[in-house]
Amino acid sequence: MLPRAFVPDLDPSSGHARLSADESAHLTRVLRLRVGARVLVFDGRGTQYLAEMTAIAKEAATVSLLEPAAAAAEPRLALTLAQAVLKGDKMDAIVRDATMMGDTAVWPLITERTIVPWSAVEQGRASERWHRVAVASAKQCGRAVVPTILAPSRFTAMLTHEVANSSASVRLHLVEPSAADEASTSLPSVGSADRALVAIGPEGGWSADEVTQAREAGWQAWTLGGRTLRAESAPLAVLAVLAYAWKL
Amino acid sequence: MLPRAFVPDLDPSSGHARLSADESAHLTRVLRLRVGARVLVFDGRGTQYLAEMTAIAKEAATVSLLEPAAAAAEPRLALTLAQAVLKGDKMDAIVRDATMMGDTAVWPLITERTIVPWSAVEQGRASERWHRVAVASAKQCGRAVVPTILAPSRFTAMLTHEVANSSASVRLHLVEPSAADEASTSLPSVGSADRALVAIGPEGGWSADEVTQAREAGWQAWTLGGRTLRAESAPLAVLAVLAYAWKL
Repeated sequence: MLPRAFVPDLDPSSGHARLSADESAHLTRVLRLRVGARVLVFDGRGTQYLAEMTAIAKEAATVSLLEPAAAAAEPRLALTLAQAVLKGDKMDAIVRDATMMGDTAVWPLITERTIVPWSAVEQGRASERWHRVAVASAKQCGRAVVPTILAPSRFTAMLTHEVANSSASVRLHLVEPSAADEASTSLPSVGSADRALVAIGPEGGWSADEVTQAREAGWQAWTLGGRTLRAESAPLAVLAVLAYAWKL
Repeated sequence: MLPRAFVPDLDPSSGHARLSADESAHLTRVLRLRVGARVLVFDGRGTQYLAEMTAIAKEAATVSLLEPAAAAAEPRLALTLAQAVLKGDKMDAIVRDATMMGDTAVWPLITERTIVPWSAVEQGRASERWHRVAVASAKQCGRAVVPTILAPSRFTAMLTHEVANSSASVRLHLVEPSAADEASTSLPSVGSADRALVAIGPEGGWSADEVTQAREAGWQAWTLGGRTLRAESAPLAVLAVLAYAWKL
């Protein structure tokens, strides 16, 4: 498999691209590629090119673009994981899993029982970190799309956000089997929807108010059978089930 | 939720039980329970009792059994995860996930590309460790069944083992999308089967020989859509999909 470089400002019409300092260092110092080496460059929005190294500088290698190159297939539905921020580096693993499973976006949520304080996520440094994780994961799994890390939001604000209220959206609220009388174990059909959101809670689960608010906002309470999942395991389990059930 | 203690030799007809040194220490020194406290004791094979602490000794607390107590529901199908041993502590997380997802057994495999040497798993210390992980996970998720850690086996020996050849078994071989022309993305119906096995490979995947051998032994090559999963993520993703698709 060819080495892959992320070039967010890739402009195919120019015929060439300049790599960032990080990507240049990785290709030339870690992988020790030389002029003439073949690489894949992708823009994170679905475009990928086969390219050839044409100049190597310490901070800015350049490549010439040879031809468009197919990347891993994208799901036919744009899936956003609205995920309560978990403690420590658990969110890194979740962003990595979400990227691998074909998600389009990750929406970090602060909920009533979220342990991580709002101040720790609002400044943007956490989001920058998650973006880097998403880039690394996209490189590894062959996607030319890097999921967007949306601006962190409080759960209630997310429920009423226009993105979450598009008429095209299928909206799922993952709840514990015991948490909602009306929770279904079967998934709605996606039909002609081109977008879906799934909201997953923090270590301590959703509050009763949050379950009610989500229902009133039109989200479907959904539970993954009778199993009690750990917070950090739930996203991968859910995304795998959605990919299977919806043939993404 | 009441504290739970694992008592593998639980004998309900005796009306009482003696806890192991570890369980005694945990209940009395960590949780600081006193005589009269209520606990749940379970035998790892599906039996659980509400019990009351009757005597506290440093190494052997005793309880009297009050009445049978319901545990988390077990899947209607006995599922064995035949898992190539992964590096480091990744197997711990897999055993934990498998327990949480309701598995009946975990079968550690050594495959052609398994990085961990046979000598590191055959002595039984690794299996003892995985058993402890399974017990801890069962306690946490409310199951009264602790998955059996089967004796580690080479992949080819597993294929011809009588357990894997029961006529009642559904046998799935998880392969990469590119690894097998005949791989299906849809799951077989479990029908009246009461047992299923799913085999998942190591970091480097299966060899071509192994894919052929499994097919010739009657295993169904199956792939989880077009996604490339990391070896340590595949088991949870697969088990979640099976639980959903088979309504376990």
